[in-house]
Amino acid sequence: MSDQPEGTRLDPWLDSYAARALGMKASEIRALFAVANRPEVVSLAGGMPFIGGLPLEEIGELIKRLIIERGEVALQYGSGQGDQGLREQILDVMRLEGVTAHPDDIVVTTGSQQALDLVAKIFLNPGDVVVAEAPSYVGALGVFRAYEADVEHVPMDADGIIPSALEEALDRLKAEGRPVKFLYLVPNFHNPAGVTLSMDRRPQIVEIARRRGILVIEDNPYGLLGFDSEPLPAMHSLNPEGVIYLGSFSKTLGPGFRIGWAVAPHAVKEKLVLASESAILCPSNASQLAISTYLDHHDWLGQIKKFREQYRERRDAIISGLEEHIPEASWNVPAGGFYTWVKLPEGLDSKSMLPRAVTARVAYVPGTAFYYHGQGADHMRLSFCYPTPERILEGVRRLATVIESELELVETFGTATRPGPDTVSFPAPDLA
Amino acid sequence: MSDQPEGTRLDPWLDSYAARALGMKASEIRALFAVANRPEVVSLAGGMPFIGGLPLEEIGELIKRLIIERGEVALQYGSGQGDQGLREQILDVMRLEGVTAHPDDIVVTTGSQQALDLVAKIFLNPGDVVVAEAPSYVGALGVFRAYEADVEHVPMDADGIIPSALEEALDRLKAEGRPVKFLYLVPNFHNPAGVTLSMDRRPQIVEIARRRGILVIEDNPYGLLGFDSEPLPAMHSLNPEGVIYLGSFSKTLGPGFRIGWAVAPHAVKEKLVLASESAILCPSNASQLAISTYLDHHDWLGQIKKFREQYRERRDAIISGLEEHIPEASWNVPAGGFYTWVKLPEGLDSKSMLPRAVTARVAYVPGTAFYYHGQGADHMRLSFCYPTPERILEGVRRLATVIESELELVETFGTATRPGPDTVSFPAPDLA
Repeated sequence: MSDQPEGTRLDPWLDSYAARALGMKASEIRALFAVANRPEVVSLAGGMPFIGGLPLEEIGELIKRLIIERGEVALQYGSGQGDQGLREQILDVMRLEGVTAHPDDIVVTTGSQQALDLVAKIFLNPGDVVVAEAPSYVGALGVFRAYEADVEHVPMDADGIIPSALEEALDRLKAEGRPVKFLYLVPNFHNPAGVTLSMDRRPQIVEIARRRGILVIEDNPYGLLGFDSEPLPAMHSLNPEGVIYLGSFSKTLGPGFRIGWAVAPHAVKEKLVLASESAILCPSNASQLAISTYLDHHDWLGQIKKFREQYRERRDAIISGLEEHIPEASWNVPAGGFYTWVKLPEGLDSKSMLPRAVTARVAYVPGTAFYYHGQGADHMRLSFCYPTPERILEGVRRLATVIESELELVETFGTATRPGPDTVSFPAPDLA
Repeated sequence: MSDQPEGTRLDPWLDSYAARALGMKASEIRALFAVANRPEVVSLAGGMPFIGGLPLEEIGELIKRLIIERGEVALQYGSGQGDQGLREQILDVMRLEGVTAHPDDIVVTTGSQQALDLVAKIFLNPGDVVVAEAPSYVGALGVFRAYEADVEHVPMDADGIIPSALEEALDRLKAEGRPVKFLYLVPNFHNPAGVTLSMDRRPQIVEIARRRGILVIEDNPYGLLGFDSEPLPAMHSLNPEGVIYLGSFSKTLGPGFRIGWAVAPHAVKEKLVLASESAILCPSNASQLAISTYLDHHDWLGQIKKFREQYRERRDAIISGLEEHIPEASWNVPAGGFYTWVKLPEGLDSKSMLPRAVTARVAYVPGTAFYYHGQGADHMRLSFCYPTPERILEGVRRLATVIESELELVETFGTATRPGPDTVSFPAPDLA
């Protein structure tokens, strides 16, 4: 990677941009991922679900009937808040996690990413603070940066964010006079850390936030994808007036529809609808009704169970690969979701190692992507959602050879790192 | 209409909102339009296209084949910039208006509304000024308000925005030290004014902006829907480095897909892609590929010609209705698009008259929606896109009775107006 900026053409509009646009820079790993998307590279980088597991024939037939029978609605503008019927079905989905709400509490969005963007838009002034786990979802960090907020990371352990560390951080921020707008969490099968906030801690975290008047943003795309157990109750179920819940069909059906949702307290929901209408007028009726008809006519819960089994098999593949080929690293064994979070052997730097990995035809996301201020170089995120178990094993083998030669460098020169560029701001969307 | 705020529940998060959210208020005409959507009301309010004119059987079959044959792409995450194949096809569409560009210059968005939101996001600081026509598109005004910008309206006549008035406004703003970020225009079959920027004026306007270093935002959803003539060359074709062109499939195919696009100078395009990835990760592959396969396999230009004829017939219906039933008003005869802009007889107020119109089972959008500071009460926008010609005539007849009784009030009391609430901020999306 060269330190040369990607675009060398002069920008005649450089002086016109808004302050918030100045932080919008392509991350230096983007160019690399263009290479990583080549078929010969095993990508353990992306968060792309296994769409091949879906009943495509049946979905195609359902959508055809939808267009023919209800095309005048499906291809028309719709409600800014989202289709009423779909909002009722979303209640059925969320009931599996103990969320009780009313269809009017739900705002349907262009993926839950848009819900996150809208929440940030209505709450964040420049300089406001978001408290998030350490590490945190790269796409959320990008949103917070776009609204010129700061992020304070709070440590996690195997049971998720640590309550005492959260209290300590909030005390410190308060003492510093820095306004905390919300606590952003991915409580289930965390991206990238793979851990789940324990049952014990959920009420503690909700209570800490409630006592201090801080909203909780519960981002939950993976909650139904546990391999070994039933879903835990959502944090929303513990304090509906203090939690904005974000859900998505991207991982339980397909991200190509771009349909997610937010459940929010009444007045917040009103603002979210207005902000969404301003941003996109309304979510896609075609996508919403396609999902609605799928939920009506297909055993969607059975499909989720199939996905769980497929992802468990892939999780098993990556863990056994790590055990066999990279025993000098450490990792967690996720009980669901798409990711494992790997700590590299002492002295290795996941960011500077990435070009060598891509050369060896394997890709991952360096840990630095998941911290607002560029920490995390001693970790990497490995995704096991997309490649087959065989390809996953091959990818881990390739990664092992890269790590081995890095370790030789460390032994010889004392370090394998070299000075890296700044934090990762906007990696490509398929990493999310 | 009561002056009572819609939500009377207390908002515990009231103190947490960002400054930009304070301006996000539901317009007081929203509640009214919930009533106006009842089937017994003839809506001359909405900008909903005539989806019934589409070949739904064929589109359903095409999408079914798409999902079965390419479902693993269509239901997956895609590129933040949009599908490469669709971007190439968009070039074919824009070639009809003289736009020459490269697929890499295009960013596909969730309707062109999102493109507008992204442009505002990367350019507008609070207090910046956008120069727009008087009147201007209500959805654009909502976006500018969401980014806390101010809007300066410049008069139009039958040939569109008036160059000398534009220069005068820009001189004045410069003298006042107010930073103008861009000039926002709907040059073809203007929403709501129905007029088209003349061939003579296009290079003049582009040159005025170029000389002063001001970007032009050319919002063009209706350009291919001229009734009597071929499309005029886009302003983009006159200065590609100084114009951001916004296009849409909402009016030439269907808004239910939520697919629009922006064509922008290289560096601006880069920022738009980053801003879009932050906001939604990527546009819907399902929607993009559905449109792509429609463009590939259907005579899309033939379909647009059919739409033109259908909308011309509706335009003729509304104009002859106005001539016959409301001769005391004045209006323009649009040569394309969806709207006519009606000046009410002296003393009438379109905003305060609206509840009476809805009671008489006809709806329109008051002119106040199309001005940033609430002017325009002497005008109304009538849409002729959605109802059949017969229903349009019935709607105009109903409107005539309302106007007549208003005029009687004026004769008796000297005025039919009563004090109205503030400006219309966020009307429902189907008014756009």
